[in-house]
Amino acid sequence: MNNHLPKGYVSENGQLWLVDEEELGFRASWKVNRLLHHEKTPFQEITVFENDAFGRVLALDGIPQTSSGDGFIYNEMIVHVPLTTHPNPRRVAIIGGGDGGAAREAVKYPEVEQVTLVEIDEQVVELSRQWLPEVFGQQLDPRVKPAFRDGNQWIKEQEGQFDVIIVDSSDPVGPATVLFETPFYEQVYRALKEDGLMVCQSESPFFHAPVLKRITTSLRRLFPIVRTYLATIPTYPGGWWSFTLASKKWDPLTAELGRLQAQDTQYVNPDVFRAAFQLPTFIRKLLDETNG
Amino acid sequence: MNNHLPKGYVSENGQLWLVDEEELGFRASWKVNRLLHHEKTPFQEITVFENDAFGRVLALDGIPQTSSGDGFIYNEMIVHVPLTTHPNPRRVAIIGGGDGGAAREAVKYPEVEQVTLVEIDEQVVELSRQWLPEVFGQQLDPRVKPAFRDGNQWIKEQEGQFDVIIVDSSDPVGPATVLFETPFYEQVYRALKEDGLMVCQSESPFFHAPVLKRITTSLRRLFPIVRTYLATIPTYPGGWWSFTLASKKWDPLTAELGRLQAQDTQYVNPDVFRAAFQLPTFIRKLLDETNG
Repeated sequence: MNNHLPKGYVSENGQLWLVDEEELGFRASWKVNRLLHHEKTPFQEITVFENDAFGRVLALDGIPQTSSGDGFIYNEMIVHVPLTTHPNPRRVAIIGGGDGGAAREAVKYPEVEQVTLVEIDEQVVELSRQWLPEVFGQQLDPRVKPAFRDGNQWIKEQEGQFDVIIVDSSDPVGPATVLFETPFYEQVYRALKEDGLMVCQSESPFFHAPVLKRITTSLRRLFPIVRTYLATIPTYPGGWWSFTLASKKWDPLTAELGRLQAQDTQYVNPDVFRAAFQLPTFIRKLLDETNG
Repeated sequence: MNNHLPKGYVSENGQLWLVDEEELGFRASWKVNRLLHHEKTPFQEITVFENDAFGRVLALDGIPQTSSGDGFIYNEMIVHVPLTTHPNPRRVAIIGGGDGGAAREAVKYPEVEQVTLVEIDEQVVELSRQWLPEVFGQQLDPRVKPAFRDGNQWIKEQEGQFDVIIVDSSDPVGPATVLFETPFYEQVYRALKEDGLMVCQSESPFFHAPVLKRITTSLRRLFPIVRTYLATIPTYPGGWWSFTLASKKWDPLTAELGRLQAQDTQYVNPDVFRAAFQLPTFIRKLLDETNG
């Protein structure tokens, strides 16, 4: 009986494992060397554990979100691409992103005056600060203003204020589901300045191709420029992850890459920026089906 | 008791799963909808099963090697890159590659006169033909000549004969270990023509970085041009996979991409070819350490 264990954790021959179950008969399991923290908040169950390959891992409701070993890949790619594409990103909002990693990358851009970090669960921020300094840094930069709010409510109060909005959400199950739907994207469009742009994580092009297609279709109805880009993130199932950038004016394909603040990045550099938009043929075809 | 099950298979609540255990506290598990074939050969235990996400999967000693769902990624990337880089690839050898997928891609190049397929285990070829037509095709092209031999023995008999040698091996455990070591690469060098080139799969840059470094170091001692490139292959742990191309004369970075036979590929196209060589910063640093 594992009833006393956090969601997704199983005990097996004296070892503790976290099992991340995909819907399509595929799962990734992580050996838990030490369970460092376990807490139920009003929103979710948060755990932090130590693993040989990934270092420290933060999981929400049993699904690994970021790790000290590869968290930099996701955070660099969801931030540097939009902040390099926009030529003057002064006001930035991050919806989700409680691990602090995206905010930390954003403030590398000297033009950034303020980053509003809209995280529903204050404890994600607090525990990331405490346990994942490789992702979070030591503390939030003074330009980062946390707002512990529901992103879907918060966005309705914003109008024409942001240069860049980064939707750093968890998967489209439970509370984050609304962040993958058209009404939310309409609010994001409204919250952006007239030359603003947004980016969201758009799930695995292999396991969740229908989600990627749906997001692309919704965003193409709203924004004149919609671009998909890819990264490989071993934490996520199958390793393949997509991001979608939707923009009112600026196009990442013609971005001034001299602006990329890659002095101390570990993944992104100008060549990787360009390469990320070069899509395999089957993904091109998948996205072409959303045209028309 | 699972003693009657093939290696790596476990029965769990009436379901059958294949568990691919990484050494670093990470494992991928595949739900086995149907075990289609199970056989012990003199070399290994071969199984073929059906999975929701990946379709039909071929496993050797419990480690998934290729699938009808994503086998095209590996096979296209290990073949089209070297065969486009060499301007006139007439004689090609594939060491390993019993699933037939690499040979199938190679004969798309009109210059190819002969492909020697050096697979130690004839049953891998036979079962791939039978169960994995999406990878294998209907039958071997007449230009493909199978040699059911130990690649490490076979290579010692070759001298100055091949334009391209593709080392399509399994992981460096068990029989394939020697295919990752300097004496084998020396034989490959000798087996190539004076403007020949080779490519090998060089494992995960995330989980097996020391293997990638060791391969790079060995090949740099022998070949003037050594290039690493990447693909994302959900079948493999963490999804990230590296290939290393080592060449006496031709450089993939200046290849004539008009030669790429991408008419009916699903993954590779000229943009993906170029993008595959754009390495994340931490991998660049890792490989830089092998210089000097």
